[in-house]
Amino acid sequence: MKNIKLVLEYDGTNYHGYQVQPNGVTIQEILEKSIKILTNDEFILYCAGRTDAGVHAKGQVCNFKCEKLKVSIDELPIALNGILPKDISVKSAEYVDLDFNSRFSAKSREYIYKIYNSKYRSALKYKYSWFVGCGLNIKAMEEAMKYLVGTHDFKAFTCATYKDTTIRHINYINIERENEYINIIINANAFTRNMVRNIVGTLVEVGKGKRSIEEMQTILNSKDRQKAGICAPAHGLYFVKVEY
Amino acid sequence: MKNIKLVLEYDGTNYHGYQVQPNGVTIQEILEKSIKILTNDEFILYCAGRTDAGVHAKGQVCNFKCEKLKVSIDELPIALNGILPKDISVKSAEYVDLDFNSRFSAKSREYIYKIYNSKYRSALKYKYSWFVGCGLNIKAMEEAMKYLVGTHDFKAFTCATYKDTTIRHINYINIERENEYINIIINANAFTRNMVRNIVGTLVEVGKGKRSIEEMQTILNSKDRQKAGICAPAHGLYFVKVEY
Repeated sequence: MKNIKLVLEYDGTNYHGYQVQPNGVTIQEILEKSIKILTNDEFILYCAGRTDAGVHAKGQVCNFKCEKLKVSIDELPIALNGILPKDISVKSAEYVDLDFNSRFSAKSREYIYKIYNSKYRSALKYKYSWFVGCGLNIKAMEEAMKYLVGTHDFKAFTCATYKDTTIRHINYINIERENEYINIIINANAFTRNMVRNIVGTLVEVGKGKRSIEEMQTILNSKDRQKAGICAPAHGLYFVKVEY
Repeated sequence: MKNIKLVLEYDGTNYHGYQVQPNGVTIQEILEKSIKILTNDEFILYCAGRTDAGVHAKGQVCNFKCEKLKVSIDELPIALNGILPKDISVKSAEYVDLDFNSRFSAKSREYIYKIYNSKYRSALKYKYSWFVGCGLNIKAMEEAMKYLVGTHDFKAFTCATYKDTTIRHINYINIERENEYINIIINANAFTRNMVRNIVGTLVEVGKGKRSIEEMQTILNSKDRQKAGICAPAHGLYFVKVEY
């Protein structure tokens, strides 16, 4: 039995998220179908993060176990890239220890949210960032996000229908300017549903001066989703890194 | 009478090129319809470069004359960006001298061709670059492209059905490495149909070692399109700058 780890990139535009669901095509479904062409074994495909509809990935990690592949591990990326649609690609494939699980072994996950902060919208960037046309007070956003670092109950920043525990540990949040982009990098042990997008939506309201810096603390304490800001659009979000 | 200059960006993926044609939606057609909403006057829309189907623009320049706009010149980009589809955007609008013509006043035009040169294809970049999965000898490509700089008859690098003169003056060609990208920047007084893509396709064959450096001279002298390399795909090409 072999355990195979894949690192994936995808353009989430045309998918209903990662996880298989009854309505609409998902990344998982396409991946499973593609892997099945290369092995006769039954397998379960695990992944590090079940990204929402429209969210992109530069470093999603998956794994599956099988007895035999029809190609060598070195040929696997090329073979899968030949089968997968153009908006999903494999960056690497390797054998890992049998006890490795891309979901449960993950120590931290990192997302980048890209805000396109310019006077006018951009035709070439609209699918890959969130256009915010007014000035943003980055210093205020940086102060506000400090309240979120550490272990907290992120219920206020979680989709209201989410049923599991909402306690998470944020290792760090950074904001980087990159030409017209404001990139918000969030690293945590794990994330609840819509957590990054709800945090970003709220931070942008702080940046616009619609909310005070200290309000971030009040929102966090409230554990009430309705107290937080809007959910930033999915197309600005990238799942970039998993550490084990 | 006012003369209005627009600088445009567009994602060419869903268009049949710039110029109005019977089959398929074009950038020009969409632009004209959008401008018509903002003026009651008849106008002719000129542009600096009639980009092919699928080609992108970061700095296309257009102009049109009218007596009266329904918005001020400062409001024009926001007004047009509100009307235009998301994959076309206006970067700037200004009044210019009445004798300015975006096509005929242009002194030079610049294109960038983006090659994604990596071991594996990228799901996030496939619409915006040409994936070349093998190593390329950049030094050989740089040597080969020197033959093209200056005034030449570029018939060998022009679509065979093109009827006008094929004599052009290339001011410079540069190759820049930018992470996994190889960017080929070509600046000329003007370009013939498919000229950049045919040059890039031929340069890549030199980079792969399929053609010698000196062959570039033979191809240029031949004035025979069949002697040159393949036409590089449209989705790697960006019209970036016009100088007046």
